[in-house]
Amino acid sequence: MSINIITISREFGSGGRTIAQMLAEKLGYAFYDKELIAKAAERTGFAESFVQEHGEKHSSFFSITYPSMTFNGMTTEDYLWSMQRKIILELAEEGPCIIVGRCSDYILKDRKDAIHVFVHADPADRADRIINQYGVKTSDPAKAIAEEDKNRRKNYRYYTDREWGAVDNYTVSLDSSVFGIDGSVEMILNMIRFLDEHPEQV
Amino acid sequence: MSINIITISREFGSGGRTIAQMLAEKLGYAFYDKELIAKAAERTGFAESFVQEHGEKHSSFFSITYPSMTFNGMTTEDYLWSMQRKIILELAEEGPCIIVGRCSDYILKDRKDAIHVFVHADPADRADRIINQYGVKTSDPAKAIAEEDKNRRKNYRYYTDREWGAVDNYTVSLDSSVFGIDGSVEMILNMIRFLDEHPEQV
Repeated sequence: MSINIITISREFGSGGRTIAQMLAEKLGYAFYDKELIAKAAERTGFAESFVQEHGEKHSSFFSITYPSMTFNGMTTEDYLWSMQRKIILELAEEGPCIIVGRCSDYILKDRKDAIHVFVHADPADRADRIINQYGVKTSDPAKAIAEEDKNRRKNYRYYTDREWGAVDNYTVSLDSSVFGIDGSVEMILNMIRFLDEHPEQV
Repeated sequence: MSINIITISREFGSGGRTIAQMLAEKLGYAFYDKELIAKAAERTGFAESFVQEHGEKHSSFFSITYPSMTFNGMTTEDYLWSMQRKIILELAEEGPCIIVGRCSDYILKDRKDAIHVFVHADPADRADRIINQYGVKTSDPAKAIAEEDKNRRKNYRYYTDREWGAVDNYTVSLDSSVFGIDGSVEMILNMIRFLDEHPEQV
């Protein structure tokens, strides 16, 4: 089976987004991350920065603080989720693509032409990356990382009823600290090539 | 860094043991699974069948039922665990090897020349494999699988304080239903080759 869709889930600071972008370039696939956010923002009428902040973070803040702030009976975040979900399903129909985060592995779990990758890394590399590459300003990178992972885990559990980072959800998971960014891209490309050459698989 | 040690953790019915054995043959590495059990059995004086049954299953049965049945103040299972741990550390010193299960990923987590693989598969393939290849007699394979996974998860958590099947514990995880047994072997070999050729990694 030819693989048309790759979802990349990633720990904060693992370099997963960079890996996804490099893969998209090498494969000539569309790449959806900020683009996806922009599309979602456009449709919901929310500001792009709001979507970026809340698209992978579930909290009951809005429903508690502003109980009347609902859309068709949904909280702001549930509405945003349902829009993102629709957009992800549509993008996957449009042609070969790579989608980063936003529970895309779950949303596209039934696509036979998709593989789902999870990128993780060791804590020291992650801390180094968020400070020196992402430009995060913090005196406690470990805390910033733990906080972001917690948000992603909570959001994922709320919307999918599955555990974020549990091997069963992903076709493959990789430690980018072991393989490096280029190496991780090479390993994933090798898998795509293998599956393309072995249509009896998947 | 040249990879001398590969630990393979696996869901029951995922074919992980077969993958480990094939890898060992291709790489010319020692393979430890039943051999390990036999060695542990020899040292502890337990019957081999007892070690096989209890080596990856933690229960408080012995300590509750026979509170006096302890070894140097340890329960039978804790004693067995400590012996298995020692044996795994020793085997890893003896030369290149592949070790299946028994928390070997955790026990050898500080070896820089080791990679840790987790093999999983979809439920239908696992059910089919335990009935038709492992010869498990059951009218409810899903239940048998859930039970065995639960034992491995509980044992792993008890002895390592980590979650069995959480991506962070493993260098790589693979879905053998997607890649097949031969394909999974090929993907792992490719990773070993890559790391051998890129000594700057690991």
